[in-house]
Parts: sequence; C-alpha cells; structure tokens
Amino acid sequence: MPFSLPLLAVSLGDPAGIGPEIVAKAWAARGSRALPPFFAVGDARSVSRVWDGPVAVIRDVRETAAAFADALPVLSVEDAGEIVPGTPDTEGARCALQSLELAVGLVREGAARALVTGPVSKAQLYAIGFTYPGQTEFVAERCGIAGENAVMMLAGPSLRVVPMTTHVPLADVPRLLTVELIVAKARATARGLHRNFGIERPRLVLAGLNPHAGESGAIGREEIEVMEPAVALLRDEGIDIAGPFSADTLFHPRARARYDAALCAYHDQALVPIKTLFFDEGVNMTLGLPIVRTSPDHGTAFAIAGHDQAEPGAMIAAIAMAGEAAERRAAAAA
Amino acid sequence: MPFSLPLLAVSLGDPAGIGPEIVAKAWAARGSRALPPFFAVGDARSVSRVWDGPVAVIRDVRETAAAFADALPVLSVEDAGEIVPGTPDTEGARCALQSLELAVGLVREGAARALVTGPVSKAQLYAIGFTYPGQTEFVAERCGIAGENAVMMLAGPSLRVVPMTTHVPLADVPRLLTVELIVAKARATARGLHRNFGIERPRLVLAGLNPHAGESGAIGREEIEVMEPAVALLRDEGIDIAGPFSADTLFHPRARARYDAALCAYHDQALVPIKTLFFDEGVNMTLGLPIVRTSPDHGTAFAIAGHDQAEPGAMIAAIAMAGEAAERRAAAAA
Repeated sequence: MPFSLPLLAVSLGDPAGIGPEIVAKAWAARGSRALPPFFAVGDARSVSRVWDGPVAVIRDVRETAAAFADALPVLSVEDAGEIVPGTPDTEGARCALQSLELAVGLVREGAARALVTGPVSKAQLYAIGFTYPGQTEFVAERCGIAGENAVMMLAGPSLRVVPMTTHVPLADVPRLLTVELIVAKARATARGLHRNFGIERPRLVLAGLNPHAGESGAIGREEIEVMEPAVALLRDEGIDIAGPFSADTLFHPRARARYDAALCAYHDQALVPIKTLFFDEGVNMTLGLPIVRTSPDHGTAFAIAGHDQAEPGAMIAAIAMAGEAAERRAAAAA
Repeated sequence: MPFSLPLLAVSLGDPAGIGPEIVAKAWAARGSRALPPFFAVGDARSVSRVWDGPVAVIRDVRETAAAFADALPVLSVEDAGEIVPGTPDTEGARCALQSLELAVGLVREGAARALVTGPVSKAQLYAIGFTYPGQTEFVAERCGIAGENAVMMLAGPSLRVVPMTTHVPLADVPRLLTVELIVAKARATARGLHRNFGIERPRLVLAGLNPHAGESGAIGREEIEVMEPAVALLRDEGIDIAGPFSADTLFHPRARARYDAALCAYHDQALVPIKTLFFDEGVNMTLGLPIVRTSPDHGTAFAIAGHDQAEPGAMIAAIAMAGEAAERRAAAAA
C-alpha cells in the first residue's frame, strides 16, 4: 500500500549549493533518525556529483515507498546544465525553481504530505526573472495565500521564534510595527502551533522593541503605544500572550521553558538567539499555509559545496519536523 | 605585609537588593573559586539581615588581609536606615551612593586595586537627585573621564560584546551610529582588551546594523556608508577588525572562537547573545578608565532579595575578572 505512506517532498534547491549533499546525507540518516519516507525533487546528477551513495531516479512519487529503503528516490525534473558545485548559474536557478514548483504542486494535490525546501540562491533566481522575495512567498502564492500572510517561524530543540518584520532595514522597523501586524502574527503563530505541534493553548511571549522593553516609556514608547494594546486585544480573544518583555531576558534556559514561541520585533532579535543556540539544527517553518512547509535555516553555502563538509543537521530536523506536523494534521482531520 | 596584597573594593549596591547576599556568597566561595582578597563597602547590617555567615566590620582597608580568611570584611559607611530586603527606599539609595563614592575613592588613591560594584536602583538614585545615567558615568567622572568615553563591555566565559549604543530607543540607533562612534568604541575596546586581558593584538568583529548586514545595500545602507568606512579607518591604524557581518552568524561556538570581542550596533544585539548563553555569569567591565571596574551583569532583583535565592555566579565572575585585570595592569606597569 505505498499510497498510504506519508511521503514528504524535498526540493533539492540550487544544484550547485549544498542542498543535494544535505538531502543525501539526511537519507543516509533515515534509520538512525527515524525519518519518514521522502523523495527528492531536482536534477539527480546534482546528487551524484557530490555523493557516492545510491540514487533511484523515479518518474512517479508512488515509486518512492519501494525505493526508499535502498536508495534516495529522486524525481528528476530537468537537466540543470553543467553542474559545478560552488558555482551557481542561471540554468541551475531554473532547475531549482522548477523543482520547487513541482514539489509544491505534488503536496497541493495530495501526492505528498508535506514540503521541505532546500536552499536556493536568490541572486540567481532574480537573474531569471523570479519576482518573489523568496521561496516562502512563492509557496504561499501557489497555495492561494498572500505572501504577507505567511509567517516565518524558526525552531530549534528548545526555542521557537517568529520575527514579525524580516528583511527590511532596521530603521524601518519602528514604523512597520503596528497593532495590526502584531495581532496578525500572533494569531497565525497560535494557530500554527496548535495545528502543527498539537499544543492545545500555545503560550506566546512578545519581545520589546527597545532596550529593557522601553523601561516604562523612558527608552522609547512603542511598547506602550503599540505592543501593550496589541497584547490586550489578543488576550481578549483568548490567546495566551504575555509581554512585552526585555528581549535580553527571554532566551536563557529558564526563560525558554515558560513559553512555546517568542514573537520578536525584527530579524536579528529572533535570529540571533536561535542561531546562537542552534546554528546547525535550526528549522524554518512557514505558518499560515494550507500545507506543511519547512526548510533548513541556512543558505546554499556555495563556499563549501562539493567538499563533503556540509552539516545535514538542519535538513534532518526540517524533514523530521515536517513529518510530525503532517501526521498531526492528518490525525486532527481524521 | 597586608599592604602589598591586591585588595579589591566591592560596593554592596542597594542594601535592599541582592547585592549584600551575592557579595557574602562570593566571600563564602573565596576558596573554591580562588578569589583575591576583597572588602565590601556598605552598611554591614544589610549583609547580616540576609546571611548567617561571619562579618568583620573594619574601619581601615588595611584590616582586610587579617580578616579575610575568617569573615567578610565590611567597611561600614553609614546607617542605611531601616533595611527591608526587597523594599528599596531613599535612605538605602543614599547608602548605596556613599558606598560607591567611598569605594571609587579608595581605588583612585591606591588603597584598593580594582572596583567591583553591586547593583543599585536607578529609580531610587534619581529620587535622591543623582544626575548620572548610571554608576558607570559616575565612576568615569570621578576618574576624570567624560561618561561617553567609558565603554561598556559584557563578558562571559567564551564571549565578549560591546554595545556601541546603549539605553536609547531603537529608532534612534541608525542616526547615532557614526564613523566617529564606531572608531572610538573600537579603539577603547582594543586598548582595554590589551590592558585588562593581556591580549597582544585583539581581534575585533563588527556586527551589521541591518539583517544580513544589509546584503550589499539591498536591506539598508548603513553598512556601506558608515560601518565599512569605519572598519577601513581602524585597519589603517593597525587595529585588527573585520566586518560588518550578519549578526545572526556571529555568536555560535565556531564563530565566537574567531574573535576576542564583538562590537554591536545596539543594546539587544549585544545583550541577547550574552544573556542567552551566560545569564547567571555575565560580567560588565568598563573600558576606557584609569582604574579596573567590573560589576555583575544583572540588577537588584528586589523580588527575590532576602529569600536566599540569589545566584552569586556573576558577582564571583566580576570579582575574579577584576582581580585578574588588576594583576595584569600591575605587571605591565612594573
């Protein structure tokens, strides 16, 4: 009954980056890490270039179940041209985009239960006319969701963080941080933690924008004028959220034990703690989508591609987390 | 020869805070942690209220050497009024300020080798007319140094960070971050690491202001317009500084091994990593002063004062670091 298995679709990302290597290494760890069966989507040659293990080129995802025990199943999409690990080009970017598109489609149509995306080069994607800020917005749009409603959450073994603003200049953050934004991010986070992690009533905390969370208005007023009203609104809705708290007191072990996710005002406030603690095992999960989507929280690492130096920890964690979330959603729907 | 011992002066801070308790606990750990001899400065009753161990009230710092083995020497400065742990008042603030003033003076005149300051309540100090932003600026002024030339460095076992701006609203940071500021902070940091830690040629890194350090200008231009020119200037002077780098990649273990101190653009960029990693053992060291000054990197913690729950780790680390820095300076001067 291969159909009934909860297969995951894993796009290889840029064929010249470390994506193919870490997906292959994740497959090699399938037993020790008890990973669910998955198939890769991309140019099978990008794997063979950097890895000596067995690859099974498949034409249909239904071949995955039979192949997975003995080889990495790869749904091969296209010839990515000359693949030179560490040297990206536009042919590789086209391959990465086609792989992503195919993988999303398979998850949307139910042929796979969750999507895991390998790292891509934004610069190369922009060079071929890609108009989305990143893979997340592309995936959201293919799911019929506006990109701004997709919420990025970074997760490590004992910390989950949501940056409420992401790739914007720091100077723009105070202006972008509105009651509406905080409320929308908190709602999506609470709902996502419930759906994907089975947490009945997620405990959220809000990190202050300013040092010491503004110290009662002495060091900035955004906490009083924007953050506290947002928290009050959310609590009225029944969402368990506390704060704003001084960000520097939120991430030591005793503090982390008190909440399920921290909402952060800007990119580095969220990314610094998660990458300080879990650099090699951070997972990016997109909340607010009809499908489960995760990715390793790192880039293409072209500098080490092809040298067998890439750490697969984050890809393994991304596959495991996607599998668990997909199972929880399936159980809830049953 | 009690005179020749490198005594440290440790102000107890607010008598109603955890200062007296953690100084007493540090004395109790003097053997196991090989701490240099020190004397406390403050109201001796604030120690007796919260600690059962032996206290030796001294009238002259020269009594410290004889007393230190068997009791915590306290140079008692004033009656702090009714001391109620956890309930600060203005009498306590006057005592804390007088303790600080006396301790600084003793270090300035050479009766003690280094200054360690216990936590104070800024709100109470302001209530009695204290006009400095904090203890650091007061100490700097007593040393004949303008407050803005004193540089705050936070140090844990495997990380040192310098926030280049501190207690200001986040919205003001981009404007405050100038080439002059970065150059001044980097010079003081390099010099301080040399004088206090004996590092011949300190390796500094600069954290970018914007996400991904601005991604070549795509997410903010401060890296290009301000940070890169500052780095170029400093390198021309012979200072070993690199960056600006994406802040989220600077603080995991492999990254930390590559530098001696990270210069950060704002409070939380520096404080989040150090407190995430070393919440109970962070030390604040002031660079740019003629004297050695450290303090534990936490506040008065009035909520737990008097309940024997205060962790002395940061105070112990502050005393140890001050002692080592004082010895290094003395050796260099000899």
